[in-house]
Amino acid sequence: MPKLVNITFQPGGQSAQVPHGTLISEAAQTAGVNLATPCGGKGLCGRCQVIIKSGQVGEITDSERRHISPEQLAQGARLACQAPVANEVVVEVPLIAQVVAEKALGPEMVRAVDLEPFVRRDWLEVPEPSLSDQRSDVRRIADAVADRCPQLTAGLAVLRELPATLRASDYQVAMTTRGCELVSVQPAAAARQCLGAAVDIGTSTVAVYIIDLETGQQLASAAAGNSQVQYGLDVISRIDYANIYNEGQAQLRSVVLETINALIGEALEQIGADQREVFEVTVVGNTCMHHLFLGLDPQHLAQSPYVPVTTEPVNLSAAEARLDIHPQANVFCLPCIAGFVGADTVGVITASEMTRRQRPALAVDIGTNGEIVLWSGERLLVASCAAGPAFEGAQIQQGMRGAPGAIDHVYVSNGDLAITTIDNQPAVGICGSGLLDAVAVLLDLGVVDNSGRFADGEASSALPKAVADRVQGKGNQQRIILANDEQTGGGLVALTQRDIRELQLAKGAIRATIDMLLGYVDLEPKDLDEVLIAGAFGNYIQPASALRVGLLPQLPLKKVKGVGNAAGAGAILALICQAERVYACQVAKSAEHIELFRESEFQNIFAEQMLFP
Amino acid sequence: MPKLVNITFQPGGQSAQVPHGTLISEAAQTAGVNLATPCGGKGLCGRCQVIIKSGQVGEITDSERRHISPEQLAQGARLACQAPVANEVVVEVPLIAQVVAEKALGPEMVRAVDLEPFVRRDWLEVPEPSLSDQRSDVRRIADAVADRCPQLTAGLAVLRELPATLRASDYQVAMTTRGCELVSVQPAAAARQCLGAAVDIGTSTVAVYIIDLETGQQLASAAAGNSQVQYGLDVISRIDYANIYNEGQAQLRSVVLETINALIGEALEQIGADQREVFEVTVVGNTCMHHLFLGLDPQHLAQSPYVPVTTEPVNLSAAEARLDIHPQANVFCLPCIAGFVGADTVGVITASEMTRRQRPALAVDIGTNGEIVLWSGERLLVASCAAGPAFEGAQIQQGMRGAPGAIDHVYVSNGDLAITTIDNQPAVGICGSGLLDAVAVLLDLGVVDNSGRFADGEASSALPKAVADRVQGKGNQQRIILANDEQTGGGLVALTQRDIRELQLAKGAIRATIDMLLGYVDLEPKDLDEVLIAGAFGNYIQPASALRVGLLPQLPLKKVKGVGNAAGAGAILALICQAERVYACQVAKSAEHIELFRESEFQNIFAEQMLFP
Repeated sequence: MPKLVNITFQPGGQSAQVPHGTLISEAAQTAGVNLATPCGGKGLCGRCQVIIKSGQVGEITDSERRHISPEQLAQGARLACQAPVANEVVVEVPLIAQVVAEKALGPEMVRAVDLEPFVRRDWLEVPEPSLSDQRSDVRRIADAVADRCPQLTAGLAVLRELPATLRASDYQVAMTTRGCELVSVQPAAAARQCLGAAVDIGTSTVAVYIIDLETGQQLASAAAGNSQVQYGLDVISRIDYANIYNEGQAQLRSVVLETINALIGEALEQIGADQREVFEVTVVGNTCMHHLFLGLDPQHLAQSPYVPVTTEPVNLSAAEARLDIHPQANVFCLPCIAGFVGADTVGVITASEMTRRQRPALAVDIGTNGEIVLWSGERLLVASCAAGPAFEGAQIQQGMRGAPGAIDHVYVSNGDLAITTIDNQPAVGICGSGLLDAVAVLLDLGVVDNSGRFADGEASSALPKAVADRVQGKGNQQRIILANDEQTGGGLVALTQRDIRELQLAKGAIRATIDMLLGYVDLEPKDLDEVLIAGAFGNYIQPASALRVGLLPQLPLKKVKGVGNAAGAGAILALICQAERVYACQVAKSAEHIELFRESEFQNIFAEQMLFP
Repeated sequence: MPKLVNITFQPGGQSAQVPHGTLISEAAQTAGVNLATPCGGKGLCGRCQVIIKSGQVGEITDSERRHISPEQLAQGARLACQAPVANEVVVEVPLIAQVVAEKALGPEMVRAVDLEPFVRRDWLEVPEPSLSDQRSDVRRIADAVADRCPQLTAGLAVLRELPATLRASDYQVAMTTRGCELVSVQPAAAARQCLGAAVDIGTSTVAVYIIDLETGQQLASAAAGNSQVQYGLDVISRIDYANIYNEGQAQLRSVVLETINALIGEALEQIGADQREVFEVTVVGNTCMHHLFLGLDPQHLAQSPYVPVTTEPVNLSAAEARLDIHPQANVFCLPCIAGFVGADTVGVITASEMTRRQRPALAVDIGTNGEIVLWSGERLLVASCAAGPAFEGAQIQQGMRGAPGAIDHVYVSNGDLAITTIDNQPAVGICGSGLLDAVAVLLDLGVVDNSGRFADGEASSALPKAVADRVQGKGNQQRIILANDEQTGGGLVALTQRDIRELQLAKGAIRATIDMLLGYVDLEPKDLDEVLIAGAFGNYIQPASALRVGLLPQLPLKKVKGVGNAAGAGAILALICQAERVYACQVAKSAEHIELFRESEFQNIFAEQMLFP
């Protein structure tokens, strides 16, 4: 029986007793250290580089000489998959060799799925050509993955580089494929990560998530305002801009691409990765954002009968999409459903697995536009409503998106209003969830009546003094202070009579749409098994407030769930799992779009639902 | 019962009696006049425009007003598919409306196959969008072909033009698809033909064939010398050129593209068609031509172990291929087999259906290189040999390719040599078939002995006087006059001792390869059911001469068949029939490449086969 030796890993301090001659990579597994070994321990990728701090390991191999410079070798650098333990050793694992084991940073709706991305990385060592093996360069590497790709296709760019790459790398390569298409072949020693990016193009906010396609882990994310905002707050005003100005459409495309490319760059910088490591991008967004991103004419979206150019899934090259990623990368735009129900809604349905449920469920995606999805248990109905951007903080006097310093919650404490802000920063404005909370509290306290007016006369004199003191002005100029000098670090944050009217319009439109859809399939609110609130604002929403103001029909509180950026989660799922991408396409095909403006009943319900319960 | 009326068609004079109210297009069918109706008589394409010379027809329809100007209408122009016959009429059918019924001009190996091209044209009239039909622009047309394409994909270029095209054309369009990819949508009234081009890139000669993909007819062809010849006569010298000079490879690519684009332009001009009417191109060529056409590095083809970059079928866009055709057109390069057995050989095998035969067969493709294909009845063996360009007229002192004025046949008449030339033009040189005939005749007459030497002494004194008078010079300077001043219009065409040596080298290499391959599968020449001789020179070859000089093993004459440009025929078949394209890919996969240089026996057989029988 071989001698047992002790091995300790820094900086974590994990240790194990392993038989003499065990590879460091195997010892790491025993000790519970997650070492990155993308090539499966073949010594091809050089990613499992560690430093021997003390003790002895086996001879340096050819593979190690290929990946590690003589200076680094002299300092104890070795490949964990090549070096066997000789006696008691202490091994340092640099950050680059560690598998990030943190909880994914991403949208909470990213479910556990099989890691089965379209884009795959294979680490290969193929035999050199000879007179008894005259296979072409392509066939030589294609045969290595013949099981899953009987026919591997390759574009000219990769064909042109292939002969030199194979010969410069001693036939040890990292091959990247998308389905059965060869995307890139790099020398194994020079290849880095195989990343994907999921992009959610909101009318107001753009978010980017970077995923390691070899592990499925989310490595980084970034979000920022959509630069198109300067040309119009909502999609209609942007379509107008595109129509009116000669280069309007091209301009809108360019600015959103600037936003996206900057965010991809920012997220990659967080992890020290390069643009050329991103081999696939999935994109969600409403139909207008989708069209502008692709350079498609959005004008017919804004005119009855609101016809998109396409609602099909679209694949295009990085070059065509003008994204700063690997030039042979693919960009997949999830399908849309209708002129005002886009790929973002398809993402929400995909993430929430609506159509896989037994019981009816509702999803409300609240962005600058509102999209409502109702799964009846058999039929998938979708509708849109012009909710306006109130819930994204726009058209609210001191509104803002959910960023640090936004008032995200308002509640009553000691007979007075109290607030929290995102990241506990000094209050600078109010975001969607704060708006909803504030109005719910004002209704409870009687500061605002069910018609949405600030209370006066008898009603106002019944208010707690601390609250009454916050109300200023008269008539349409009335407002209530939410954050004082102290809470803002100078200045006030207040909610105005006009802000409350904006909220009424928005919630009335959403609620009327929900009621109409329920009526379409003869369902009552009580039949709903779950109600999901998606959208940037779904991260912070208090379900109780949504119920209190009547945004949602009366339901038990526990059935209502804020799910954050579910559209982005759908884009991530489509990136890491082929089956989920197929599911998204099926969802888009099976959805029935209901054009509510055609229904005379809609305006009646809308007017009624502008009132608070 | 309706009144019968008489209708006569000019210029052919065909006539018929048809019931009053019969459409002119139907009457044409009855009269046996082939009228072009690509849209199937829906009044969408406007291609069946005729002129009423006398008599009366029904009212002018909206569709006719869309396609015919008021001036033309006033002159009697009408659409045959719209105008019903009212009384006795005489109708003129312009050339454009006639289906060309001539025999295809193309290579004789183009077999009758199902017309089932990848690229298809559909003429559609789709419903206008409405609030009860909000399908996207893409879905609107995709649904019209949903039977064959449940999922139609579309690139950005066509998506960008689609909304305007649909609305400008009153939703009457000509749609071009490649498989289930949307390639182009044009207003029906403005759309012209849907053409394909088959391109055969030979080392010496490039040929282009233009095919109407709606009828399968070959409409035009053009051929010219490959401009790469200025950089080297054979593939090895071109590969050298590509290696030695910095921009050598790019230069070789550019000049062959110039040749191809000029030929496509020339062929289109013959039929008054436009570049943008060409929606697909298929390409054959040897592996070096294939690599240079695609911009792939050919250097490893010339060094043992002669490894190509790829032998797989390659699809690329017209833009990537730098071909002057429709920008969304596809270019399909047939697969290759090995470094010296290319897509041209795959074309030959496809055209000749080698592997669908019961009995063994041999194909010899003679270009600047020689490729030999042997079908044993079970196995498909291929080999190449460096035959040299003698059969293409190169390295023969007065050699030329098979063009007007080339001596293509030599025979004995009245005790003297006699010749024919291509197109009966004055003799300007000698092409491959003439060379073969000449040597066969000289062997028969005893002018040349079986070692290839001009006869002297006793043997030469036994020659007919007229023939003996033609022999001039001594030793290596000896030559025989084939065409005199009178036959050339000034000057002589002669065959030299050195020319005969070149032929011996070429035929020896080909014959040795044939013998080796037969030996590989234990076959005798007598087992062969058929021997096909392909190559430009296969158009003119006399099988008897091929047997006489020993280019082929001894076989009954009737088994040997010259089949012309079978490689080009393969490219045409792959263009017009998907099943044939699939067959070509299967052929390439199943072929076993035999590297004869590895066999020590080859040199012995080669030396022996340089002698004449």
